[in-house]
Amino acid sequence: MSAPDPILADALARIQSDIDGAFDALLPVPADTRARLVEAMRYAAIGGGKRVRPLLLTAIAELYGVERAVAVRCGAAIEAVHAYSLIHDDLPCMDDDALRHGKPTLHRAYDEATAVLAGDALQCFAFEILSNPDIIGDPFTRAELVAALAGASGMNGMVGGQMMDIVAEGSSFDLPTITRLQQLKTGALLAASVEMGAILGKVPVEGRAHLRGYARDIGLAFQIADDLLDHEGDADAAGKALRKDAAAGKETFVSLLGADRARAQAHMLLEQAIAHLAQHGREADLLRALARFIVERDR
Amino acid sequence: MSAPDPILADALARIQSDIDGAFDALLPVPADTRARLVEAMRYAAIGGGKRVRPLLLTAIAELYGVERAVAVRCGAAIEAVHAYSLIHDDLPCMDDDALRHGKPTLHRAYDEATAVLAGDALQCFAFEILSNPDIIGDPFTRAELVAALAGASGMNGMVGGQMMDIVAEGSSFDLPTITRLQQLKTGALLAASVEMGAILGKVPVEGRAHLRGYARDIGLAFQIADDLLDHEGDADAAGKALRKDAAAGKETFVSLLGADRARAQAHMLLEQAIAHLAQHGREADLLRALARFIVERDR
Repeated sequence: MSAPDPILADALARIQSDIDGAFDALLPVPADTRARLVEAMRYAAIGGGKRVRPLLLTAIAELYGVERAVAVRCGAAIEAVHAYSLIHDDLPCMDDDALRHGKPTLHRAYDEATAVLAGDALQCFAFEILSNPDIIGDPFTRAELVAALAGASGMNGMVGGQMMDIVAEGSSFDLPTITRLQQLKTGALLAASVEMGAILGKVPVEGRAHLRGYARDIGLAFQIADDLLDHEGDADAAGKALRKDAAAGKETFVSLLGADRARAQAHMLLEQAIAHLAQHGREADLLRALARFIVERDR
Repeated sequence: MSAPDPILADALARIQSDIDGAFDALLPVPADTRARLVEAMRYAAIGGGKRVRPLLLTAIAELYGVERAVAVRCGAAIEAVHAYSLIHDDLPCMDDDALRHGKPTLHRAYDEATAVLAGDALQCFAFEILSNPDIIGDPFTRAELVAALAGASGMNGMVGGQMMDIVAEGSSFDLPTITRLQQLKTGALLAASVEMGAILGKVPVEGRAHLRGYARDIGLAFQIADDLLDHEGDADAAGKALRKDAAAGKETFVSLLGADRARAQAHMLLEQAIAHLAQHGREADLLRALARFIVERDR
């Protein structure tokens, strides 16, 4: 990986601390036996992950002058959905993973029932944040944010992609199919991060085309980079098990294209994503650095 | 059970058909491999259950002149949350149930991974409905509906109550504790049904006190009646396994009060619920009949 961009390094450190702070403030442990649930939610949500989605959301929001505290809480909402999807993905009946972000997965640290419930509650929590008038004053913005996140998370987005991924196991498929699958499974939530930043910034729908192009390109690049890391990476650095796709006989961008062509494709998408930002000056440098990071990261 | 009230019998038949119709229209099976997910969602959502929550919502909405088609779709949203909670509750790591609404539970009919994902997607689907501007035109109403349903479903509502229920297993506790547990686990979603009907009817918050009183009383009565049915009922008529609480050593209203005092308590709550409707005339007869049904139903 190239030397870390200082703008990006600062922004990553700041969003990681801000998102942890938001979860800490919004998830106080209750005094009754629900404590176990909220502690499990905190275990999964606080202190792990790169926070790429909240960083995308806050970077777009900053471009349009949105108050940071509001953008951070919306970032926590999207991260809550991401965190719940990882909890349920890791369950024995799904990927049966033991390690996540370098620590035991939630069902190992607690138990399966608590992991199912903590995932359910985290998904709900995302919509509690976005519909809270004390966090976002304008009801139209609240309703639009909920629609964007719900549309990207469910059967026509992330969960739909997860189902396609499970059905695909052991069967061979082509590049258009895996592209569609990954656009739903990973791309939809990344695109929603950009969309939600634009909603907060009150960017009119017709003014969002270049942002959507940027989101689409980095979404696909993100997944190709993930497949490359899975193929070439180090499990200790990644903090999770690797090469499960190959073991399960699942096709990836690397198995379909080979590592070299996959890498070239990711870089082409990176250039394309950056080209979508041409109308913005230096104030979009963080978004450019973030696109580069998504392709060139080592975990 | 007393002879079925004709107003109620009509209303139940109508809401059951309307909710099935709403799910059928809103959940078209896609042409790709997400078909498995949406078929599983339809399996769990269509054709089962008494639809008490949507009936509550539409009955309140009707009292305030809300268009029925809109109220029915909001009823489908709350029923989607109820359906997802049953899917996850039935999982092997939770209650490990084989039968629901007289047919195999979702993880038996499909598999566990599909059941986890279908539950996740149904929860999300509820918020997709409520934030859809083609279904509810006014953004303030959309945002309020999402806040009401999310607040009642998550850590401070239904899921919180489920966690308390799991933690409580095998330990003995008192009447205030089981009342609080059940207010969260079952009462919160019943209260949200009433609240969402009032939101659709644009009833000002200060005008909702009697509706909230009604909701609170029937919520608790509902759970006491459930415990009585579990204690005295017939598994075939119920379409699910019974007397699991006693087998698991869990306290219920019946174990704490005895069947006679529990029945008396349910009837006291029923009278109290009906008293909350005193300001309404014959137009609230359906809500009165529904309260009676909740206490006197035989399944």
